[in-house]
Amino acid sequence: MVVTVAHDRLRRLTEYAVSDRAALDALLDEQWFGVLSTVSDGQPWAVPMLHAREGDRILLHGSTGAGALRQVASGAPAVFSVTALDALAVAPTTFESSVNYRSATVRGRLEPLPRDEQEAALDVFSERILPGRTGEVRASTRKELAATQAMALAIAEGGWLMKASGGWPATPEEAEAEPDVWSGLVPLRTVLDPPLAAPWAQDLPVPESVRRLVDGA
Amino acid sequence: MVVTVAHDRLRRLTEYAVSDRAALDALLDEQWFGVLSTVSDGQPWAVPMLHAREGDRILLHGSTGAGALRQVASGAPAVFSVTALDALAVAPTTFESSVNYRSATVRGRLEPLPRDEQEAALDVFSERILPGRTGEVRASTRKELAATQAMALAIAEGGWLMKASGGWPATPEEAEAEPDVWSGLVPLRTVLDPPLAAPWAQDLPVPESVRRLVDGA
Repeated sequence: MVVTVAHDRLRRLTEYAVSDRAALDALLDEQWFGVLSTVSDGQPWAVPMLHAREGDRILLHGSTGAGALRQVASGAPAVFSVTALDALAVAPTTFESSVNYRSATVRGRLEPLPRDEQEAALDVFSERILPGRTGEVRASTRKELAATQAMALAIAEGGWLMKASGGWPATPEEAEAEPDVWSGLVPLRTVLDPPLAAPWAQDLPVPESVRRLVDGA
Repeated sequence: MVVTVAHDRLRRLTEYAVSDRAALDALLDEQWFGVLSTVSDGQPWAVPMLHAREGDRILLHGSTGAGALRQVASGAPAVFSVTALDALAVAPTTFESSVNYRSATVRGRLEPLPRDEQEAALDVFSERILPGRTGEVRASTRKELAATQAMALAIAEGGWLMKASGGWPATPEEAEAEPDVWSGLVPLRTVLDPPLAAPWAQDLPVPESVRRLVDGA
């Protein structure tokens, strides 16, 4: 949720379609979670899930026991939706006011990963959210791997849509407002606060992975 | 996306169901957007939308021209999903690591608001995101109101589900890890950066509504 365009170069823009795959990847890599939507008995079904992009696919995972997940994993059509709010766009009228955002939907069927790809996928997941952590902790046990179902959603050509809204809000003239009404942007940003050690870890040093994540944010 | 529980009182918790309506309202009021999921020709369909809770209903709005919105507004079953990531929960193993979050789904059919409730609903929307703004700008015109479709999704008993995960991650003992592996939380927070005046508003004072929003965040 960072405004990535230099503000002095921004011109007025409204909602527009994004066809640049690199922009999609950047959004997917920047956000930790999305909403997985599918259809169950004709009814819409939605659940937020952490995700990790690996090349041309999005990895998801959940407990092997979760019923809803099992249904999606078994081949129901799914849409994964990821959104970043970048700024509040305060226009000279409420009608023209909105948010600058980026959002993407990736459509397809989830493929359960075979047993032998499970461990690598979970490591990708962990490294995506907290780089370096897999080197600081023990490997997953057979029992842990058996309790987890990793799945992949392919990012196929024609299988995704991205939209964004950016730039300054409407001018007073465009908005048919008095010329002296302020307008502008209020940028939004997600920050990581200093780590809080668990009660049993108060005397242990904060690991490198956590320090890097917090300092780099 | 704020950790609202005092950390020293936290015990270990895993994912749990929340039945407290006040917790649902707090989540809906804190977050500016959610994902609206529905079914279109048997396929899942999802779009992020800004929302505003007003008592026992969630207000949404969009352009009168938007096809997908028209379909949902015309009575298809819908689910609105709102999520807050509160912290990264770093456990002594990758298997036990996760995030502390709150998420809710509200299920129902969207009701298009009648013409005469449209203006009040859009004002609620604006005030919800930027309190005080409606007093600083002109009222919406007839043309603007006609271009907008406001809709309501009822928050009915039995029509919503909320889940959360909070507290410290698993202990080394619970996670079957070495006792000297650090674990803890990295809290996440959304911040508003100082407002950026549009090029044509550089000489105007930042309005009260924007100043209060940014200072209070």
